[in-house]
Amino acid sequence: MLMSLKEIAELVDGQVIGDENITITGVAGIKEATKGDITFVANPRYASLMSTTRASAIIVGSGVENNHRPLVKTDEPYLAFTKVMNILANGNGEAVSSPSIHPTVILGKNVELGSNVSLHPYVIIEDDVQIGDNVTIYPHVYIGRKSRIGDETLIYPHVIIREKIIIGKRVIIHSGTVVGSDGFGFAPVKGIHHKVPQIGTVIVEDDVEIGANVAVDRGTIGKTVIGKGTKVDNLVQIAHNVVIGENSIIVAQVGISGSATLGKGVTMAGQSGVVGHLSIGDNTIVAARAGVTKSLPPNSFVSGFPAKPHEKEKRIKACLHKLPELCKTLSQLLKKVANLEEKLNNIK
Amino acid sequence: MLMSLKEIAELVDGQVIGDENITITGVAGIKEATKGDITFVANPRYASLMSTTRASAIIVGSGVENNHRPLVKTDEPYLAFTKVMNILANGNGEAVSSPSIHPTVILGKNVELGSNVSLHPYVIIEDDVQIGDNVTIYPHVYIGRKSRIGDETLIYPHVIIREKIIIGKRVIIHSGTVVGSDGFGFAPVKGIHHKVPQIGTVIVEDDVEIGANVAVDRGTIGKTVIGKGTKVDNLVQIAHNVVIGENSIIVAQVGISGSATLGKGVTMAGQSGVVGHLSIGDNTIVAARAGVTKSLPPNSFVSGFPAKPHEKEKRIKACLHKLPELCKTLSQLLKKVANLEEKLNNIK
Amino acid sequence: MLMSLKEIAELVDGQVIGDENITITGVAGIKEATKGDITFVANPRYASLMSTTRASAIIVGSGVENNHRPLVKTDEPYLAFTKVMNILANGNGEAVSSPSIHPTVILGKNVELGSNVSLHPYVIIEDDVQIGDNVTIYPHVYIGRKSRIGDETLIYPHVIIREKIIIGKRVIIHSGTVVGSDGFGFAPVKGIHHKVPQIGTVIVEDDVEIGANVAVDRGTIGKTVIGKGTKVDNLVQIAHNVVIGENSIIVAQVGISGSATLGKGVTMAGQSGVVGHLSIGDNTIVAARAGVTKSLPPNSFVSGFPAKPHEKEKRIKACLHKLPELCKTLSQLLKKVANLEEKLNNIK
Repeated sequence: MLMSLKEIAELVDGQVIGDENITITGVAGIKEATKGDITFVANPRYASLMSTTRASAIIVGSGVENNHRPLVKTDEPYLAFTKVMNILANGNGEAVSSPSIHPTVILGKNVELGSNVSLHPYVIIEDDVQIGDNVTIYPHVYIGRKSRIGDETLIYPHVIIREKIIIGKRVIIHSGTVVGSDGFGFAPVKGIHHKVPQIGTVIVEDDVEIGANVAVDRGTIGKTVIGKGTKVDNLVQIAHNVVIGENSIIVAQVGISGSATLGKGVTMAGQSGVVGHLSIGDNTIVAARAGVTKSLPPNSFVSGFPAKPHEKEKRIKACLHKLPELCKTLSQLLKKVANLEEKLNNIK
Repeated sequence: MLMSLKEIAELVDGQVIGDENITITGVAGIKEATKGDITFVANPRYASLMSTTRASAIIVGSGVENNHRPLVKTDEPYLAFTKVMNILANGNGEAVSSPSIHPTVILGKNVELGSNVSLHPYVIIEDDVQIGDNVTIYPHVYIGRKSRIGDETLIYPHVIIREKIIIGKRVIIHSGTVVGSDGFGFAPVKGIHHKVPQIGTVIVEDDVEIGANVAVDRGTIGKTVIGKGTKVDNLVQIAHNVVIGENSIIVAQVGISGSATLGKGVTMAGQSGVVGHLSIGDNTIVAARAGVTKSLPPNSFVSGFPAKPHEKEKRIKACLHKLPELCKTLSQLLKKVANLEEKLNNIK
Repeated sequence: MLMSLKEIAELVDGQVIGDENITITGVAGIKEATKGDITFVANPRYASLMSTTRASAIIVGSGVENNHRPLVKTDEPYLAFTKVMNILANGNGEAVSSPSIHPTVILGKNVELGSNVSLHPYVIIEDDVQIGDNVTIYPHVYIGRKSRIGDETLIYPHVIIREKIIIGKRVIIHSGTVVGSDGFGFAPVKGIHHKVPQIGTVIVEDDVEIGANVAVDRGTIGKTVIGKGTKVDNLVQIAHNVVIGENSIIVAQVGISGSATLGKGVTMAGQSGVVGHLSIGDNTIVAARAGVTKSLPPNSFVSGFPAKPHEKEKRIKACLHKLPELCKTLSQLLKKVANLEEKLNNIK
């Protein structure tokens, strides 16, 4: 596959600066790119690399200038680059599998399969499952009784979806992830923990992506929800009855405790956590490693543990740096004041 | 399935307040419940919802009053609700599988199977494994050579149990969990890390439940132990030669380092951790995100990192809030004292 | 299998103190050892146990003395013990499988298999995969299209290796680990997160070991690299385009964010993390739970969050202990100084 720079500019609704007739044959990062590749600069931090890259052309945002290479200017350089990748770097991911059901697939009773479904070897689909059109399910996936998988969803090898789970359309679930394991609920009586049956479900809405080795527990009663368009990274814990709003970002190793509710457009950065039963308002950012212990209004930006407004936390962290010095100063002051008191007493 | 409120009260050893003849057909959370459902209030925090719930009846603890709906009073409302769930909400979890061995199961040599064993598709049982009575092993589970599984144990899809592991009775292990992977042991010589063979085992005692995507390493030599009745949440790391006592609670994403010993009734809250080779006394509570760096006596309650007595940590965190102000106050004091010293010198 | 103490001393290049003719039949930890076992003391902390162990002999480092039992003195007691383990404790791990391809294995087109390859039941090898000599692949493993596995590599049950991944020689990968899942990359436009294709790869170099339930994402473009001889513990997150140098140690539950670069001989202790795009110099130690937010020069030793030089962090933590007292002292000082000011004004 190859494209002229002009064709690329048309694809991404951009403007060529330089020779629009050059031929682009591949995509690459700005450091790795070689002749024939197109690369991109979305972050001005990397603009200095534009003078040394061996790429044949660069996709840039509107504020970035450089005359080392032909440019394609566009408002959304990263998105534009993504579009070009989709064409020039085709062949990523698995081989495009022609729709088919491998003879080793085990289908339960009353399974409804849409059109163009691809079920790979050793997939198990239990009774009463419904699978939409154009769904691809890679090897060794397990789908429990009465679960439903929406159209065009892609499930990677070794995903486990337990019974009665609802997965939306265009969802992507990566390997090793478990959706619908029992919530962690026990009734303690005299030191013995009695299991509380976990009879709820999980709803994964349309356009969600879930990373590798994630655990999403089913509701104890009711449901656990991952809202439309939300993206979840690897090794995340989503406990029973958690509700995550639309278009949120949950980064790797985050833990969300039982019955916590996140709004729309929330970002939880890596290794952060939320205590159970709290609610986090829309568009809130929880910084990396922050631990949220109180509910937060919309548009909050918190960090630290317990999580505080980020500006406050920054001031505290800045003071912490001076703490050893501060301790010393204080003990010097104590002596000085004692001296002063003595002198003053002598004067009297 | 349906029950009268009178029958429910008998089941849970409780007392009906209101019409004992009404018919209950389901269970639900207090917000989700509709006509015919019974719900519960164990936490007084939720008592206000009793006036608005659409449930037909409510199970409550002895101190809770409300005349909006018929009540069932009992000392342990959560446990009581659990009992009712087990009857009325049957059909949760997997379909009850009739004991059988699917033709795709691969059985090694000298495997001993108890009565009523259910082995689902693509299960692999290696040589010399012993499996007790009434055991259910869901699809794709792997059980290594010479391992033993106790009666009535339930193993969800895609669990991996390595060789020579001992699993007790009535144990539940959720999907994606690995029991018996090699401990992380290397002998460093001149910067190269030489693997130390991991020849120990794991003992999971009776009535343990282990969540999804947990890793439990085998002992280097000797054993890793999870004590009777202990419950482990998702994504927990249990290193080689860890010993956890009975009836402990290990919440999601906790990390327990090699050779740490936990007593009975210990609670480790979410994302907390323990340094290797420490011991934690019975009934200790380690708060969420705490990092234990020293051994702890029984009945400790610690938080923070390094973990300190919770009351002390709370005082420190309260001061931290004031730290920026404190810095300012201190520098003002410094000036004042300098002023005082000057004045005093002028007086002399 | 049995060995005389003399033979053991020759094997490990050590020196016998005591009766070199005694017979050793097994290995064990110092507490668990019984008659016939050899044990070891590498850490002087455990030297006191030498007087009570029931082991028949003890491997010790050069500084350790005791006349309770025959000793084998050597410079590297742990490594020496490891060598003895390899002989006397044979039979750990899986049964040594005779090279064979189980009839349930599904082999794609153009798969190249080396000699002495062992492919266990329900393994799936996609098209164009190359597998070296003496490779063992345990049950249910999935290897994606065009991936390559080096000689003598050992892959435990339920490992998922996605397409176009390169695994070196003598690599060990534990159960549940995913190598090559998509990086977490989205182009946000007006609150919607558009997936960025993840077309890069992962290179796992020779002699790497990766624990259980780890997630290693493929590069967005370019590659994610785990350097030769590096050892990775369980439940670790390695994001897209991370590069880890040779002989590093990544302990359980560590998170390494996208495009971070670690040098050689780096240690990241348990539950620590690194922000994306940073670089960490050779031989740096990141303490448990530390969070690295700035690039670090070689030979750094950091702790805390944000990570600081360990000595500095220790001083801060020591002051934190005194913080509540310090608050009190400061408010007393404030009063004293106010008093002094008043008195001084009265004098004037």
